[in-house]
Parts: sequence; C-alpha cells; structure tokens
Amino acid sequence: MDRTYKKVELVGISSKSFEDAVNNAIDKAAKSLHGMAWFEVTEQHGKITDGKITEFQSVIKVAFKVD
Amino acid sequence: MDRTYKKVELVGISSKSFEDAVNNAIDKAAKSLHGMAWFEVTEQHGKITDGKITEFQSVIKVAFKVD
Amino acid sequence: MDRTYKKVELVGISSKSFEDAVNNAIDKAAKSLHGMAWFEVTEQHGKITDGKITEFQSVIKVAFKVD
Amino acid sequence: MDRTYKKVELVGISSKSFEDAVNNAIDKAAKSLHGMAWFEVTEQHGKITDGKITEFQSVIKVAFKVD
Amino acid sequence: MDRTYKKVELVGISSKSFEDAVNNAIDKAAKSLHGMAWFEVTEQHGKITDGKITEFQSVIKVAFKVD
Amino acid sequence: MDRTYKKVELVGISSKSFEDAVNNAIDKAAKSLHGMAWFEVTEQHGKITDGKITEFQSVIKVAFKVD
Amino acid sequence: MDRTYKKVELVGISSKSFEDAVNNAIDKAAKSLHGMAWFEVTEQHGKITDGKITEFQSVIKVAFKVD
Amino acid sequence: MDRTYKKVELVGISSKSFEDAVNNAIDKAAKSLHGMAWFEVTEQHGKITDGKITEFQSVIKVAFKVD
Amino acid sequence: MDRTYKKVELVGISSKSFEDAVNNAIDKAAKSLHGMAWFEVTEQHGKITDGKITEFQSVIKVAFKVD
Amino acid sequence: MDRTYKKVELVGISSKSFEDAVNNAIDKAAKSLHGMAWFEVTEQHGKITDGKITEFQSVIKVAFKVD
Amino acid sequence: MDRTYKKVELVGISSKSFEDAVNNAIDKAAKSLHGMAWFEVTEQHGKITDGKITEFQSVIKVAFKVD
Amino acid sequence: MDRTYKKVELVGISSKSFEDAVNNAIDKAAKSLHGMAWFEVTEQHGKITDGKITEFQSVIKVAFKVD
Repeated sequence: MDRTYKKVELVGISSKSFEDAVNNAIDKAAKSLHGMAWFEVTEQHGKITDGKITEFQSVIKVAFKVD
Repeated sequence: MDRTYKKVELVGISSKSFEDAVNNAIDKAAKSLHGMAWFEVTEQHGKITDGKITEFQSVIKVAFKVD
Repeated sequence: MDRTYKKVELVGISSKSFEDAVNNAIDKAAKSLHGMAWFEVTEQHGKITDGKITEFQSVIKVAFKVD
Repeated sequence: MDRTYKKVELVGISSKSFEDAVNNAIDKAAKSLHGMAWFEVTEQHGKITDGKITEFQSVIKVAFKVD
Repeated sequence: MDRTYKKVELVGISSKSFEDAVNNAIDKAAKSLHGMAWFEVTEQHGKITDGKITEFQSVIKVAFKVD
Repeated sequence: MDRTYKKVELVGISSKSFEDAVNNAIDKAAKSLHGMAWFEVTEQHGKITDGKITEFQSVIKVAFKVD
Repeated sequence: MDRTYKKVELVGISSKSFEDAVNNAIDKAAKSLHGMAWFEVTEQHGKITDGKITEFQSVIKVAFKVD
Repeated sequence: MDRTYKKVELVGISSKSFEDAVNNAIDKAAKSLHGMAWFEVTEQHGKITDGKITEFQSVIKVAFKVD
Repeated sequence: MDRTYKKVELVGISSKSFEDAVNNAIDKAAKSLHGMAWFEVTEQHGKITDGKITEFQSVIKVAFKVD
Repeated sequence: MDRTYKKVELVGISSKSFEDAVNNAIDKAAKSLHGMAWFEVTEQHGKITDGKITEFQSVIKVAFKVD
Repeated sequence: MDRTYKKVELVGISSKSFEDAVNNAIDKAAKSLHGMAWFEVTEQHGKITDGKITEFQSVIKVAFKVD
Repeated sequence: MDRTYKKVELVGISSKSFEDAVNNAIDKAAKSLHGMAWFEVTEQHGKITDGKITEFQSVIKVAFKVD
C-alpha cells in the first residue's frame, strides 16, 4: 500500500484551447514518463497577437509513480 | 433586500471536459437544492490512465438562497 | 474533551453595513443550527447602484458543535 | 447577455471608519466612472499618530461596465 | 464514470495529537455520511492551558460521494 | 530592449463557455487598447438560473505595451 | 532617511464591533510601545453564544519605529 | 470581556517528530511568557542528513494575553 | 484628510537588474501620472537566452493620488 | 560558499501516519538522490475507506545539492 | 539538537536599494538581538516623490536562537 | 506552434546579492539544461552569521523547452 509519487511541473501550449494545451503537455510527458496517475492545473494564461489569442498556455503538475 | 446565501463545495467529474464536470456537479445539486444563484471554480485537476486523461475534475462552490 | 465542529459558509447581505450583513447571516443560521461557537470573515464585497453602495455582502464561515 | 466589466483598484482614506473609507473611494470614482456594478475589499490598514488611529485605509476593487 | 462529490469542513479536537483529532472528526462524520472517499488537512492549531497543550485541533475537508 | 507593459483587469461574460468569456473581454479591449501582448486568467465563476449555468464569467488580466 | 520599524501581531477583542476591537488592541499597545506608525488588519473573526455574536476579534499587525 | 492577545512566531526543532517540535517551542516559551492561550502551526519542514530526517522543524504562532 | 488613491499594475523590463526594471516602469509612468506616492513589487521574473539572463521583469503596483 | 540546490516534489503514502508517509518519500528518494539537505511539507491529505483512514498522503519538497 | 528560534518582523528602509534596506534592518536588530541565524524577505515596496523612488522598503522576518 | 516547457525549482546561493544567487542557479542549470526560456523568483531568504548577512538565497523556477 505504501508507495511514492513524483510531481513535475509542465507548461503546455496550444493554438486551440486550454484543454488542448493540457493534452499537449501530457502527450509530451507520456513519451518519457510511465505510471502517470493525475494532474493539477495551476495557471492559465496566453499570448495575444494583433488583438487575438494566438496561444493558450496551461501550467500543470503531473504526478507519476516512482518505482 | 437583506437575504442570506449558503455555499456548498462540490467536485464534479466528467470524462469529457472541465466544463462538463462543472455541469455534472450543478445538475446533481439541482436535484436537492433550490435557488442556486452562482458558482465559483476553485480547483481543476484530473486522472490519467495509460498516458491519457480519463477524468476531468472541477471543484466548485455553489451558492443558493437560504429561505 | 474530544469533540467535533462543522463549518458552513454563508453570505450575509445588508443594505446598512458589513457587520449588519454578518448579523443577518448568523440570525438566519440560528433558525436551523444549534451550538454555533464562532465565525470567521473570509470576504467583503458589495453591490453599487447609481454610484452608491446598495448592498454590503459579508462571506463568513460559521462553526457549530456536532452532537 | 455577453458583456465586459473592467476592475480598477482604489485606496479610500477616512478619519472615521473603514466603511467611510470605502464610501470615499466610490464617491470619488463616481465622478469619472459610469456603470459601476460591484466592489471587493482587498485590504484594510491605517495610520497611527500619537497612539491613536488617525486614518482608516480601505483598498477596494471597483468593477464597471465597459460600453 | 461521471459522478459528484461534496466536501464538508470539520474541526476535530483531541487531547492526544493532530492525527487523533483528524480521526475524531472522521469517526463523527461516519455516523451520518456514507461514501466518504478522501480528506484534506487545511489547518492545525490548538489550545494551551498553564503552559501545556491541552487540545489539538485539526481542520479538515472530507469528501463523500453524492448519490 | 527596456520597455514597460501595463496590466488591466477585465471580467468577460459569455453564455457559452469560459474561453468564450475570455474572448469577449479581449475583443472588447481590442477596441481601445493597442499592443496587447498576453493575458492571465485569475478567476472563473458564473451565474445559475433555474438550476442551469446561464453565464460564464472569466476574470483576466491583459498586458499591453506602454508607448 | 534610513530607519527601521518592527511589526507586532495583536488580537483585539470587543463586544461591540471589529473597529472597536482594533482600537482596544492599539490602546493596549500604546501603554508600552512608542512611535506606532501604522496597522494592518489580517483576520476578522468572533465568538457566538446562544446564536448571537458576543465577541468581535480583529487580528492586526502594528508597526512602530525602532530607535 | 474586552482584552488583547499578542502572537509571537516560534520555530521548534526536535529529532523526534513535528509534535515534539511544537512542544519544545511551547516549553521554551513557557519560561518567559504567561497566559499562553492557543497556538497555530504555520509551516512544517526539516533537515535531512545522509538520507535520513535528523530534524523536525515546526513553525508556530503562540498567542498570550496582554495584561 | 480624506482622499483617494488609484493603483495601476505595471511590468518594467530591464537588461540590467530588477531594480532598474522597477525604475523603468516608474519613469514611464511619470510621463502621464502625477502624484505618484508609493509602489509595491508583486512579481519578479525574467527571460533567459543561451543560458544567460537577458531581461529582468519586475511587476509592480503604483499608487497615485486621484484629484 | 556559492552553491545550488534543486527541489523535487514528492507524494509519500503510508497506511500509518503523515510522518511515516514523509519517511517513505525520503527513503524512496534516497535511492537515486545524493546530498539531500532539507524537506518542506506542502500538503497533507488521505484516503478514506468504509469510514476509516486507509492512506496518509504527505506532499513534500525535497532539496538536494547540485554538484 | 532540540532548540527553539523566535522570528521577528522588521521593515528596513533605505534610500539606495532593497538589499540596503534589508541590511539596515539587520544592523538595527543586531544591536539588541544575539544569535540571529536567518532572514526571509516577505514584501518589497517603496515611496515615490516627484516621480522618483526615494525610499526602498524591505519587510523581513529575522530568526534568532532563544537561549 | 504547439510546444511544451518543463519548470524546475532551484535554490541559488551567493555571498554577494540576491541577483548573483539567481545567476549562480542559472549558470549551474546551464551545464545540463538546454533551451532555458524564462525564470520566476519565488522566495528570497538568507543566512546571518555574527549579525551580518553571509548568504543570499534565491529560490527560482526555471522553464526550458522539452524537445
């Protein structure tokens, strides 16, 4: 029952939406991390160009099991 | 003009999106609470299974009028 | 000596003052809760109409003993 | 239904009370802002001279409708 | 998969330890709540009498499933 | 390289979604502000009418370059 | 122009109001501290007895000049 | 009924546990302070030596009555 | 004695230091604002290029008297 | 004298106590990290099964020297 | 190994820089406190006169060993 | 346009200044991390020996691009 998780902080960026930005970060993390169990959104911001949102930036913490 | 509201804290969970999770929580609350007036999102997190988001969890406070 | 309290979050509203708003919330709570022991003010805001304050809104947590 | 508000941050000062300080700030704002809808108290502090409170300072955010 | 939890805030008090205070609150809650799933510690404080700790007070939020 | 930005706080409101509310606020701001560079979401809340969400309210800070 | 202040944290209690509680704390501090310059309100809570507020408790920080 | 408390911030250190660290701080304070009434835990951290916890550090605020 | 201040939020940027960034923001503000009385630093961050800090960014609030 | 530490965030889980959960996380970290110097507790929560605490979860940051 | 520290909160003021303000506060404290071990910066603000910074104000907590 | 950054938390230490401490941390990180893009200062504290500051400690988060 006793086990340990590690949290890493990621910034996902998407031209579509905050949720797509979260997905981008998790997809990228999935390439090197195994055993991801949950994530937490800590910040939401973005870039504006010529009066329009051009980047959605989601800051998340992702927790994965330490073997 | 003088009146009182009560806030309750709910965690809505959805397989689709954070907004759907908010909707789930409010739909569930609507079954027993009357006079709901506003809600506030306080946390956004979720579950990851096999490298994909399988649950969106939105923590909200819902305020309703106390008769 | 061992005992348990529950906290509920209320929003009192008054046309007079923030303290009257706190009193309104506690008076309302007193109709259904027994054993209220303390309260904490967590937010103070209000409504403005035609450039004048027309509502004082005090958000409080009220703690009462669980029998 | 879709509309936008802007919030400005003000520090009202009064020799009488925190609520009078809030009123001073809103009265001053009413001279140049139209469509004020609500306010939020964010800080309360004050000045002490010769061991007595000589200024009550209320920091508030005031929201008004952007036409 | 979609479901909703409600969080309630409790203050457990014990003469022994902070963890015993958490246990007291959860034991008390178990008498009326079903489906408790997790808890979060939000504050730890206590009472001092004659220079000794006589009460450990743990403030927790308890989440339970809403049927 | 040395330059200065100013941040203004806006509340966008939409009947559709939190992101649409952000877009509404930025569209409105674009009518009077030039050189907007980024935004930060600081709060998400909304209005409930007859048990359904009728307004999504996104509070954002928008930064623009000061000439 | 260079000088140093020290801040002390006090809890004033009054049966009348939060501002009277602040005054009580500053009056008490004035007996031993000289050169008090400003105060900041950090918490507002109180005691409830038989469904009525019987104590207003204002937590403040008071700054005074260090000679 | 009107009275004033002062809060002081202490860091207790123990080789045994966080609660023992709180006790150490209160025992030390009891030597010079009278009328201690309550304490609040604000931080918990510690020292690690050779991969093992060698110090538990509890930061607390202790409130005592001002005569 | 009664008067009102307004706070504006600025981001100063400098290639030299955080304090130079604060100065840049205040110099820029001085061109359009009169009666500036105080400032508060709320964030400090910066840009890194090729492993070296190339921008110091200081976020400040500046308060000025409202006539 | 000049040196650098890195902090990693871990979630230790134990069926016994919050301190045991901290120990589990540090023991696990000790297998791959050298030069651990201190830790900070940032969150305490847990799992409830059938009305009893079955997991104590301590979130900590662990700092270790970067060679 | 068991020992106790006390933290005091100071506001250092300098016409030169934030770090000089910290130094002023610590120099002043060194006249009456022995065994100072560490400090923490909690706020940075300042005074503006005629559009220029005339005071740098650093709020710090200083910890010293209690004998 | 879609991309992901990772943030790591570092504590830089310098005998000279807080900014030198930030530089030390970034110089150290530059030895193993590529694509560092920005940093954020989250804490500033230090060590005092014999009444003088002997260490400036800057806690920062550094973000770098994940390939």
